[in-house]
Amino acid sequence: MIDNKVLPTRNIHIDDPFWSEYIRLVREVMVPYQWEALNDRVEGAEPSHAIHNFKIAAGREQGEFYGMVFQDSDVGKWLEAVAYLLETKRDPALEEIADGVIDLVAGAQREDGYINTYFMLKEPGKEWTDLAECHELYCAGHMIEAATAYYRATGKRKLLDAVSRFADYIDTVFGTEPGKLQGYDGHQEIELALVKLYHATGNERYLKLSRYFLEQRGQKPHFFEQEWEERGRTLHFPQLSMVHEHEYSQSHLPVREQETAEGHAVRLVYMCTAMADLAIETKDANMLAACRKLWDNIVSKRMYITGGIGSMEQGESFTTDYDLPPDLAYAETCASVGLIFFARRMLQLHRDSKYADVMERALYNTVIGGMSLDGTRFFYVNPLEVYPEVLGKNKNYNHVKAERQGWFSCACCPPNVARLLASLGEYIYSVQEDTLYADLYIGGQAKMVVAGKPVTIEQTSHYATDGRVRFDVTPEQPAEFTLALRMPDWCDEVEITVCGEKLILTSADPDGYIRLTRKWKSGDIVDLVFAMPVKRMSGHPLIRQTFSKVALQRGPFIYCLEEADNGKRLYQLRLTADHDYSLADQTGIPDGVKTIEVSGSRLKSVADWSHTLYSGDSSWAREEAKLTFIPYFAWANRGVGEMSVWVGEEV
Amino acid sequence: MIDNKVLPTRNIHIDDPFWSEYIRLVREVMVPYQWEALNDRVEGAEPSHAIHNFKIAAGREQGEFYGMVFQDSDVGKWLEAVAYLLETKRDPALEEIADGVIDLVAGAQREDGYINTYFMLKEPGKEWTDLAECHELYCAGHMIEAATAYYRATGKRKLLDAVSRFADYIDTVFGTEPGKLQGYDGHQEIELALVKLYHATGNERYLKLSRYFLEQRGQKPHFFEQEWEERGRTLHFPQLSMVHEHEYSQSHLPVREQETAEGHAVRLVYMCTAMADLAIETKDANMLAACRKLWDNIVSKRMYITGGIGSMEQGESFTTDYDLPPDLAYAETCASVGLIFFARRMLQLHRDSKYADVMERALYNTVIGGMSLDGTRFFYVNPLEVYPEVLGKNKNYNHVKAERQGWFSCACCPPNVARLLASLGEYIYSVQEDTLYADLYIGGQAKMVVAGKPVTIEQTSHYATDGRVRFDVTPEQPAEFTLALRMPDWCDEVEITVCGEKLILTSADPDGYIRLTRKWKSGDIVDLVFAMPVKRMSGHPLIRQTFSKVALQRGPFIYCLEEADNGKRLYQLRLTADHDYSLADQTGIPDGVKTIEVSGSRLKSVADWSHTLYSGDSSWAREEAKLTFIPYFAWANRGVGEMSVWVGEEV
Repeated sequence: MIDNKVLPTRNIHIDDPFWSEYIRLVREVMVPYQWEALNDRVEGAEPSHAIHNFKIAAGREQGEFYGMVFQDSDVGKWLEAVAYLLETKRDPALEEIADGVIDLVAGAQREDGYINTYFMLKEPGKEWTDLAECHELYCAGHMIEAATAYYRATGKRKLLDAVSRFADYIDTVFGTEPGKLQGYDGHQEIELALVKLYHATGNERYLKLSRYFLEQRGQKPHFFEQEWEERGRTLHFPQLSMVHEHEYSQSHLPVREQETAEGHAVRLVYMCTAMADLAIETKDANMLAACRKLWDNIVSKRMYITGGIGSMEQGESFTTDYDLPPDLAYAETCASVGLIFFARRMLQLHRDSKYADVMERALYNTVIGGMSLDGTRFFYVNPLEVYPEVLGKNKNYNHVKAERQGWFSCACCPPNVARLLASLGEYIYSVQEDTLYADLYIGGQAKMVVAGKPVTIEQTSHYATDGRVRFDVTPEQPAEFTLALRMPDWCDEVEITVCGEKLILTSADPDGYIRLTRKWKSGDIVDLVFAMPVKRMSGHPLIRQTFSKVALQRGPFIYCLEEADNGKRLYQLRLTADHDYSLADQTGIPDGVKTIEVSGSRLKSVADWSHTLYSGDSSWAREEAKLTFIPYFAWANRGVGEMSVWVGEEV
Repeated sequence: MIDNKVLPTRNIHIDDPFWSEYIRLVREVMVPYQWEALNDRVEGAEPSHAIHNFKIAAGREQGEFYGMVFQDSDVGKWLEAVAYLLETKRDPALEEIADGVIDLVAGAQREDGYINTYFMLKEPGKEWTDLAECHELYCAGHMIEAATAYYRATGKRKLLDAVSRFADYIDTVFGTEPGKLQGYDGHQEIELALVKLYHATGNERYLKLSRYFLEQRGQKPHFFEQEWEERGRTLHFPQLSMVHEHEYSQSHLPVREQETAEGHAVRLVYMCTAMADLAIETKDANMLAACRKLWDNIVSKRMYITGGIGSMEQGESFTTDYDLPPDLAYAETCASVGLIFFARRMLQLHRDSKYADVMERALYNTVIGGMSLDGTRFFYVNPLEVYPEVLGKNKNYNHVKAERQGWFSCACCPPNVARLLASLGEYIYSVQEDTLYADLYIGGQAKMVVAGKPVTIEQTSHYATDGRVRFDVTPEQPAEFTLALRMPDWCDEVEITVCGEKLILTSADPDGYIRLTRKWKSGDIVDLVFAMPVKRMSGHPLIRQTFSKVALQRGPFIYCLEEADNGKRLYQLRLTADHDYSLADQTGIPDGVKTIEVSGSRLKSVADWSHTLYSGDSSWAREEAKLTFIPYFAWANRGVGEMSVWVGEEV
């Protein structure tokens, strides 16, 4: 089995022409903005009240709870992002703010260890009566994640101790033993958090509790139905179906028996992340098999080309195999963040580049597409086709926005993106025995221990813009080990120069990595040039919504047409057979990331449509048109307009 | 202005190889079945309780009200269908049943004239407190329609007198005078019913009341908001938005100011029908102008090629111009019935065949497509594309069924179809001064008065199957008048033989009619052969959902592909340029109505899809395929399967 662990981000310093700007945005824009938002100081934005809730619970303020039942989790996610920032770069002012928040959280903690401002302030006495809907353990999980990250970053134990006490208390409440609640949370999260707490504390009690929550899920009689009966059949979200629709929360079957990705997409991938964690920690082959089935179902049947998941708004959910409507897509930003969490664990369990490929797909397209280029506005929903003129008219698109929004009333996505980007270093490398794997090509410096020897890797990456990557390998002492470089799924040819010796490869090892084994010494350099032609991508022929259409991809980026470049009525455009793409730079697109121009046509009807909606004259004329594609992640940064990833071809 | 009136159906006897079967189904299957359903004697079907409600209200039974707030209307619509059947053919047993129902209704009537079993039994004292939601005047309207039809059919006044008393009472409750409620119903219906009551009684009070309801609609302050405040902000249908979303009930603007078809499609066309009635009766040019605007918006921007209207499930509503998704369509059967009502009035107001063309489109496609070929099962929703495997999985399709259902819990469509088909004779001819217009080509005998002279027309029609129609014209005395024959919108050439003299026309008069003026004498014969080639129809290029696809049409019928003939994955099929269609007969399709076979192909991807959802190999192979199309109305009579009206072309 696998024993490599995630590398602490303190050992990774990102310095990358594409990604550094995102990290800067997290540090300088998103985290400060979110802090203002958490304190209700963003003008025009819906108040969060999250910090006030803690202040009230800690007895430092008078007032009433305000917000969603899961409002506390925003504080947890923000603290977690802060922790990652502090881990990579000291920032005493930020740390002082964070310490203040931790004082609040600890100050709000009840004698018995319980922390949840909603129940403490608004429904005292109703704790643990509506696990299906009320996100109590979900909020706990986010605070635990924050605590473990903060402890790792600063060495400060205050929050870690607090959440440990909380987890100890939770362990007394839940379990299969007589007198305990045989329950679990409607929204998976604590399961993966408890594994982190186990890592941080070494206390196996938390690992065991995590396994309990996973294994209890989906058992019969159904816990959510039981607690619903017991509390008098009340519902917190009567308009949703959190109690009775068990697929929604993946509680329709025991987790090991689930073979398809059903229900709420974020919950599913958070659950899968914890399942994979358990498989890693306990070498549970059964659990690993379940992880693989769910993974395969997601990525081979239910994932958008942008790495988005969740085909419908109802329940923010998966639908069924090969059902991937580009316009009705939910493809929540958080779900793609969660998919990356899951992928990262699968990569630990099963060394295969396909997991990193999905990580890359979700990261370079949906996750960063979820935020504006200036880091101030966010998409919750990431469709692959938008026609603004029907939005607000056709209510099937009520979840779709043509413009990113500020802080949301359900503000899960922005802090989720922030904590992922702030911890991006964790996803670049992994070490397994005497092999150092490069999973993502993101520039910067990393200090690792490979085959027992300290090694510094300096990656200089122009991967996003032209596929060029350089590794300066600096072992403390000359040492033999393997550098395994991921061959991206989109790449058919890579030129590799190892210490001056050049070779061209068109394929990698069966697991998708190119292995360079040698006795590395200081000054060794590996240069990579991944061929990055524009590719016309097709969807599986069972996806009816993309059938006979193509999407352009270059490197890790999926492209799209926007009205700003191509005019209205994008569905009238067709690519010609001509594959003579020209690459260009465009203002407003990150430096060096290319737009694509290619010849195409606009189909025009030759019929007279002035008096009729349907005509027997079905002939069409082609008008030559230059089509301009921009990377999907950069869409909707130039005002409201049409967008489409998929485009028809002249055939 | 126009002074032609609808011809009583007693003067029309339908005898047609296509339509007689439908009339038989109404008489022998639907009306008896619906009678059983109204009496809760259909096994396995949701109980209606509608007759019981009246029995309880009439003091003949003990019990409680059961059903929807508009349950009474099912009785009204059933009685109306019965009346039309009795008008065209005496049936003492059926008449006795109907008389019994009328006794019940009259027996349930309150001293003051009020009739509504929901409020009398379930919410006495709450009458007229929730017009927005509770369908009180809607139910009254349907009973009034039934009464006028029954009076015309049988000469019996009992129900007519009862509803007149009810209408008199309503007139004391509503109006702009001080002390009256300045309200109107959430669901338009009474407006058109009161015009019928005016016709039946000659009492202008009802015409005036109808006009009041139309003119009050959409005035400010908004009545629905006012009554909502007054009743303490309660909602009867809290999950809907009947009170605050004024477009839903077309109460967002005064009716004369409405220029686009918004909201609930059935309500809109019922309202338009009444508006056209008022324009006819009062020669209100303003009202006529509003009718025309709404008509034009519907048929030139918001109507499916099948004559269906309503692009979304939410609110069973219109969305916006050129937004006509084939798969998400609502296209309620009742809405197309209502569109025919509206079209019939527009034809009276403005002699132009375009109105009859829409009548025909809706009738031959959506309306009869709404029922199974055996008359026992019904569609409420009539999509133009169905992939059964996503139904129940992708909740955007929760309203879509792949099989017709029995009696519905909201059972509006089956009786609506029954009353339309039972009164089909009213839609075939119209007389205006010295011109006899043939609007629909449905065989049978009609006795009319043209230019003051009695004329009998015997129409022998094979219109639906091969476009051949014969008129035997028999004036009582030789008489000069004009026979005006509609040139269907799908027809480019008609061969006309008038008393042995043949001519070929490729166009009609600007109003769409071919006029034959002569001194007609007994034995005169007109033969018509409408050229009926298969046509490839395109949608307006602004309809993105049908862009670059075609639908086949032959004569009045729109065709579709079904899985039963073409296998699964209909979206992979393409029509070739070859226009060599062959027509065939098929078991299960009404006699003589052809299926269409034409050469096409199935696009197959040549990539290896065993391990990937997206591939850079975007080349396709064509596999020759014979495509079989059946008339849309006949779909879903051979089990559950895929269906698509629109198909791509090889280009």
